[in-house]
Amino acid sequence: MKKKNARRTTSTTQCPIARSLDHVGEWWSILILRDAMHGYTRFDEFQKNLGIAPNMLTRRLNSLVESGLFVRRQYSEKPPRDEYILTQRGLDFLPVMFTLLDWGNRHFSPEGTCMYLQDAKTGKPITPVLVDEKTGMKLSFENTNLVPGDAASDAMRRRLAERKIPAKA
Amino acid sequence: MKKKNARRTTSTTQCPIARSLDHVGEWWSILILRDAMHGYTRFDEFQKNLGIAPNMLTRRLNSLVESGLFVRRQYSEKPPRDEYILTQRGLDFLPVMFTLLDWGNRHFSPEGTCMYLQDAKTGKPITPVLVDEKTGMKLSFENTNLVPGDAASDAMRRRLAERKIPAKA
Repeated sequence: MKKKNARRTTSTTQCPIARSLDHVGEWWSILILRDAMHGYTRFDEFQKNLGIAPNMLTRRLNSLVESGLFVRRQYSEKPPRDEYILTQRGLDFLPVMFTLLDWGNRHFSPEGTCMYLQDAKTGKPITPVLVDEKTGMKLSFENTNLVPGDAASDAMRRRLAERKIPAKA
Repeated sequence: MKKKNARRTTSTTQCPIARSLDHVGEWWSILILRDAMHGYTRFDEFQKNLGIAPNMLTRRLNSLVESGLFVRRQYSEKPPRDEYILTQRGLDFLPVMFTLLDWGNRHFSPEGTCMYLQDAKTGKPITPVLVDEKTGMKLSFENTNLVPGDAASDAMRRRLAERKIPAKA
């Protein structure tokens, strides 16, 4: 974590996006989470599916445990073997995963759809959209503001005051 | 890209999540996108705000242009200077950004909220939730299936057949 913290500038230290990335901002971490959400729990399953080097997998799993996304649970005493169970924090990553999936399907699937989300009850395809829970409004650049919360630093307030709706190419 | 492709195993090559990560699966890339969504467009703005080394910033911007998330547009002839404008593909990353923001706010804000989303019209706080566009159903592990699309390989079909709802710690 220290290396990553060192990369952040004062003005963005408080940013919740940067903080999220502190914990999962590594390609492998997100793929491990993806596999955990797929129901895999064991080192061997992750390794086989991802083709990741064991030492790298150990490092990423340790980091995800430290960040509170997984807990270790022993499933065998002889030999001693742990599995990795998602915590509520880990499970709460689901919307990030589904939005990545949808973005990938829309923009990086030249040969057609390889996998998609379906309503488990009706079997109908799902189009994931991000809305406000209370009003149902679909969130966009135009209908949202990013505003400082109670804990915002002066640097964060200055940054947020500069926000503009991005131009489109 | 080649290095990243090499890390993928056959069974997940088709995964739209992995494909998304191919294009943005690097801490800096997502922070640059975040800043672009904040309205910044210029090299100097990104550099100042992120405290990123110029050669690294150049590399990440080039990669984001190659991936079709930005286009370059010259804003000064003497000296020649480009700005980076988000394409529709880049703008479509918004839901990923907002879900990362929300996850960070819920799980990594020990001192309180530093920034949050507000309804631009009413000024009321927004709670972002991911729903099915047609039914309004809030998406969860339990009410969704991941199923193979027309272009799914046999490996992808086998993988999806193994899917289980993850246990909770």
